[in-house]
Amino acid sequence: MGHSRVIDLAATFLSQQCCPRGQCPIKLRSTLRAPLQPHTHTKELLAHTSLTKMAGTRTVNPDLRKERESSSFDPDKITNFLYGGPEIVKRKRELESLALNDPDYQHEDLNFLSNEQQYETQLKKGILMTKKIQKLNLTDAQDMMIYRSAVGGSDSPSFGLHVSMFLPTLYGQATQEQKDKWLKLAENYVIIGTYAQTEMGHGTFLRGLETTATYDPQTQEFVINTPTITAYKWWPGQLGKTSNYCVLMAQLYIHGKSYGPHPFMVQIRSLQDHKPLPGVIVGDIGPKFGYGPVDNGFLAFHNVRIPRENMLMKYSKVEPDGTYVKPPSTKLAYGTMVLIRANIVMNSGRALAKAVTIATRYSCVRRQSEMKPGQPEPQVLDYVTQQYKLFPYLAAAYAFWLTGQTMMSVYMTFSSQISKGDISVLPELHALSAGLKALTSWVANMGMEECRLACGGHGYSHASGLPRHYANQTPGATYEGENTVMMLQTARYLMKSYNQSLQGEKLAGSVAYLSSVQPVPAASRTRNMLDLGALCDAFRHRAARLVHEAAMQLRNERQAGKDQPDAWNATSVDLVKAAMAHSQYFVVKNFAERLTDSRLDSSISAVLTRLCQLHALHGLVTNSGDFLEDGYLTGTDVRQARRHINTLMAKLRPDAVALVDAFDFPDGILNSILGRYDGNVYQHLLEWAKASPLNKTDVHQSYHKYLKPFLEANRAKL
Amino acid sequence: MGHSRVIDLAATFLSQQCCPRGQCPIKLRSTLRAPLQPHTHTKELLAHTSLTKMAGTRTVNPDLRKERESSSFDPDKITNFLYGGPEIVKRKRELESLALNDPDYQHEDLNFLSNEQQYETQLKKGILMTKKIQKLNLTDAQDMMIYRSAVGGSDSPSFGLHVSMFLPTLYGQATQEQKDKWLKLAENYVIIGTYAQTEMGHGTFLRGLETTATYDPQTQEFVINTPTITAYKWWPGQLGKTSNYCVLMAQLYIHGKSYGPHPFMVQIRSLQDHKPLPGVIVGDIGPKFGYGPVDNGFLAFHNVRIPRENMLMKYSKVEPDGTYVKPPSTKLAYGTMVLIRANIVMNSGRALAKAVTIATRYSCVRRQSEMKPGQPEPQVLDYVTQQYKLFPYLAAAYAFWLTGQTMMSVYMTFSSQISKGDISVLPELHALSAGLKALTSWVANMGMEECRLACGGHGYSHASGLPRHYANQTPGATYEGENTVMMLQTARYLMKSYNQSLQGEKLAGSVAYLSSVQPVPAASRTRNMLDLGALCDAFRHRAARLVHEAAMQLRNERQAGKDQPDAWNATSVDLVKAAMAHSQYFVVKNFAERLTDSRLDSSISAVLTRLCQLHALHGLVTNSGDFLEDGYLTGTDVRQARRHINTLMAKLRPDAVALVDAFDFPDGILNSILGRYDGNVYQHLLEWAKASPLNKTDVHQSYHKYLKPFLEANRAKL
Repeated sequence: MGHSRVIDLAATFLSQQCCPRGQCPIKLRSTLRAPLQPHTHTKELLAHTSLTKMAGTRTVNPDLRKERESSSFDPDKITNFLYGGPEIVKRKRELESLALNDPDYQHEDLNFLSNEQQYETQLKKGILMTKKIQKLNLTDAQDMMIYRSAVGGSDSPSFGLHVSMFLPTLYGQATQEQKDKWLKLAENYVIIGTYAQTEMGHGTFLRGLETTATYDPQTQEFVINTPTITAYKWWPGQLGKTSNYCVLMAQLYIHGKSYGPHPFMVQIRSLQDHKPLPGVIVGDIGPKFGYGPVDNGFLAFHNVRIPRENMLMKYSKVEPDGTYVKPPSTKLAYGTMVLIRANIVMNSGRALAKAVTIATRYSCVRRQSEMKPGQPEPQVLDYVTQQYKLFPYLAAAYAFWLTGQTMMSVYMTFSSQISKGDISVLPELHALSAGLKALTSWVANMGMEECRLACGGHGYSHASGLPRHYANQTPGATYEGENTVMMLQTARYLMKSYNQSLQGEKLAGSVAYLSSVQPVPAASRTRNMLDLGALCDAFRHRAARLVHEAAMQLRNERQAGKDQPDAWNATSVDLVKAAMAHSQYFVVKNFAERLTDSRLDSSISAVLTRLCQLHALHGLVTNSGDFLEDGYLTGTDVRQARRHINTLMAKLRPDAVALVDAFDFPDGILNSILGRYDGNVYQHLLEWAKASPLNKTDVHQSYHKYLKPFLEANRAKL
Repeated sequence: MGHSRVIDLAATFLSQQCCPRGQCPIKLRSTLRAPLQPHTHTKELLAHTSLTKMAGTRTVNPDLRKERESSSFDPDKITNFLYGGPEIVKRKRELESLALNDPDYQHEDLNFLSNEQQYETQLKKGILMTKKIQKLNLTDAQDMMIYRSAVGGSDSPSFGLHVSMFLPTLYGQATQEQKDKWLKLAENYVIIGTYAQTEMGHGTFLRGLETTATYDPQTQEFVINTPTITAYKWWPGQLGKTSNYCVLMAQLYIHGKSYGPHPFMVQIRSLQDHKPLPGVIVGDIGPKFGYGPVDNGFLAFHNVRIPRENMLMKYSKVEPDGTYVKPPSTKLAYGTMVLIRANIVMNSGRALAKAVTIATRYSCVRRQSEMKPGQPEPQVLDYVTQQYKLFPYLAAAYAFWLTGQTMMSVYMTFSSQISKGDISVLPELHALSAGLKALTSWVANMGMEECRLACGGHGYSHASGLPRHYANQTPGATYEGENTVMMLQTARYLMKSYNQSLQGEKLAGSVAYLSSVQPVPAASRTRNMLDLGALCDAFRHRAARLVHEAAMQLRNERQAGKDQPDAWNATSVDLVKAAMAHSQYFVVKNFAERLTDSRLDSSISAVLTRLCQLHALHGLVTNSGDFLEDGYLTGTDVRQARRHINTLMAKLRPDAVALVDAFDFPDGILNSILGRYDGNVYQHLLEWAKASPLNKTDVHQSYHKYLKPFLEANRAKL
């Protein structure tokens, strides 16, 4: 899919692995700890502008102002915690201001435009952005990512696949000669490329790809073909109308023998007139949910010949005579996958945080119904049911944000080891990232829709920003590994680890706990259900039990006569459940651990602890059966947990707006009238509506064409 | 909101209540049992065309053909069960064929068009449809509803609010003189109206409306005003550009005293040139999630004067001197609400059934991954995880379909009693319909998205039909009563009933079970978790316990010193949970009861029983904590339930396609390439994409405008 936003972030880090010899033009920096050096070329950057300062010049809705005045902490402190320090936050705000205040990027609301107009608008803006990035001399990957995202607003930045997949694949998989030939052209946008892997009939299962690249030793060329309709490349972003090159994944055939999927550099459109080259069929796949401005494309080949040198040969090679040279390891690609999935975790947290920001602010502006006779309509956020919709997702957004950072941090710790070819840590990281990608993208999906529904009627309007954010985020459940498939990958690792532990091996890393299954405590034991240690124990016990039970079920199915694949399939619902519990345990534990950071300002640790407690308790009561089934928790514990949730929500209520402000999304990125920082919702809703296409004239042209003759004929008949 | 589809169905029934003296031009017929009389004017109707016969002339995808050949029953038998008999099904198919095969209604896929073009296309089609309905002499309400829905396809039929709200309000709330004045004009589309109630700042809480109608006894006029921006009418369908009249809900003021919201007949656009009348501000509210072709509108007034006779005065009256005459009862409106909500239950079932049909068929066509090394890629539906995504929602669609029928049937049973003013049964019906509306629309929302995600990448394409079906269905969670508010209404009735039962009153109807709370059985007791009686008992026990616990919690909050509103708010999460459990119990019990129908063909009762078992067991395991918390079920019971689900899914697998075929949705209503009856997905996906707007030229015009200069400048720089 057109997952350019997701992979955009990934590109920041991919580059390190791709260019170990320091040749990568994109400089790497960890998001986590490294302080940003002041740029020497920032004279064009605007002054540091925090949300508060920006709003200072405007009239803020009084309800929202009161919320901010009564919060228990300074949101900037949490912003610094979330982004890694005040210097990083300052730089982020500078770059965002630069993008969002640039009059050159202003255009009509994309929601008012047809898909075709949206494509054209974003293309124009993308070209402008590419030029400005050069002019501003933004070379730091993190800087570019922030700037590009801000220009993109609710949508993916243009040339997303070029930046995030095409270039990195060249860096990572091309030989030096190939780099010399193409990199300069690609980096300078003389050629624009995408990454064409998924086919109409083949997604998850790479080995099922049908596109063929058959080596012809006579001419030393590969002949590319699309043998069936299901072999059409389908979905790559920016493929339909924009790219003139692509990296194509195709089945390699030499002397009639198949060698599996390999990457090839293929020109698809003329550099003179942009027409598809002979034998190339290329186009847009049509409108879809989200990604309105992106030309996701299809691509087919009929006997298209490319030189032997166009196979990307850093790892596998084909000699002129057709001799195939195997790659040193097939598992290196795992590192990239881990990174991309860690980024999806981050992005799921961010996307959920955006939706929660919008719904929380609006719930303080919106007044509705009558709680007490004769009194004014209360703010919607004062209804406990509304808190119960939003606060657990507020907590989840924080939890996922911190999980994404940890995943990234773990990856960075091991990345030099991985890039040297020591991949011992990869299976663990791979399994962990798969489950967390699935968990966080699923929950973000559900939570964003819950936030939209919590905004009542106006949540359906594109003015709320929520439908667009949702439609652009939901593909995270499918791309880069369909979520159920992801959970089953995690489960496979859990089963393997569990069996190793049965055989006496000591497990390490995220599965270490499987070595020591806790006994079920006596039912009479009383627990403090607010204690984070006790909550982590409960999640650990649940995960360990569900892993154990899935393993037993798998064994039962085998003993009942099923072969391994059938037994696995028959157990798969339990396996997904176990992998989910494992992933949830990791998230809860990670959140609790991050709170022990000694650098944490004491004024914010109390409120963050409440969020962590709420996250754990809400996960516990919504899955209470898992904890009750073997008697680990009692009914009394669960009832206690429910009461604690109510108490926590009441305590979080006055800090809710400050907690979403701390995510530090400028209005230009939220793109939501309901979620405006200044809370001036209603007048802007009206202005927005008045500017929409049907209102260009008081009487729509269709009246003259259709309605008038109809009405007049009806009148004449009476 | 533009909920015309929902209310369209309701209009069928509303008419009975509106026109007790047989003056209603729309004839009523129950959907449930009454056989259809053959029409005398059917020569223009096409011959009965079942799905099977239609597909007979086409090549059906071999996988799908095999599915159908191996099912255990004839899907037509279930179709007859679902729709109420073979005659009704025959008539339905005739009308659908008539609409779907009419070349006059053909147009470009709405997904290819801008909102403005969609509006224009549907307006044109709506005018045509209105003429054809006259020409075909379709006067039966059920016939019209079927025909109009088929013409609408995935979207609401045009003039939805006119037919479903404007006309019925005139029938129901106008005096005879008012009817004489306006009905003929409205029925013949000389005036086109909508129903303007919701305001920008006011939805759920009717008394909060701000629009004023101030009586001026001097001129015997009402002066209409929009005193604030939040008083703008907002959302009414067909208001923005189409309607020239509306029924306006406004606060009545006489001699400075407020009498609450009342309905007024207000002209808003000129009948000569369609321009807004002086003092009227009207327009479209802009693009939104779903309802692309509908001109949901805003409306404001500045000193607009209407004659006293324009207040709809069947119930309340204002005399010329300003004397206010109260209505006989304010509860009569409850009847209409029950009916509309019963229809939302029906429609939730239907919408979910559409999504399940699409995903199930596609899951048999789609082959993916490798289950066993060397073997062909299996049909996706053979993965147990895929079954676990779809089959519970297949079962829920059946359950909700039958619930909707029962609600309607109960309403019909009591409707003559209600229309005579005996409203004793209304509180019970009202509470039941509120909870069921919320439950079914929530589950349909979740289920439709689950179905979309179960279709992998192609689920995101508008070619799948799923994004559009979802966006058009999801407002059901908000309109006609926001779901959480609905659940709390049900909870209020449950609390009242529970307290009555504590005081020794014997309860009747859907809450009778609250009188007799079952004891928790001994833990050692073993259960057959497939027994429908035992499953109903479990759901009943859970509902009764949660009602009891919510009542205890409410009492505790009061005893802790909170006043009633604060105590209610503090308990509201538990109250929603209790109302949900009550509603789920009703659905499960109703499904089980419908299976005892002696007319049920034995060949289909086995498969329907499996669906009912699956529905109950899935509800049980996903809420297992509720059953375990007080020890009603044991961990062993829940584990047994999970195993039964696996077994039931394996048994349902060969019947899955037949079970969705039985819903009898023609392709023209599914509007889904993935869900085509013939399963020829891939070639049509390609054809559809090729026809999409960006592919009108091989090289898009934006290349010349933006991309070419960019590429050439970059090349020149190298």
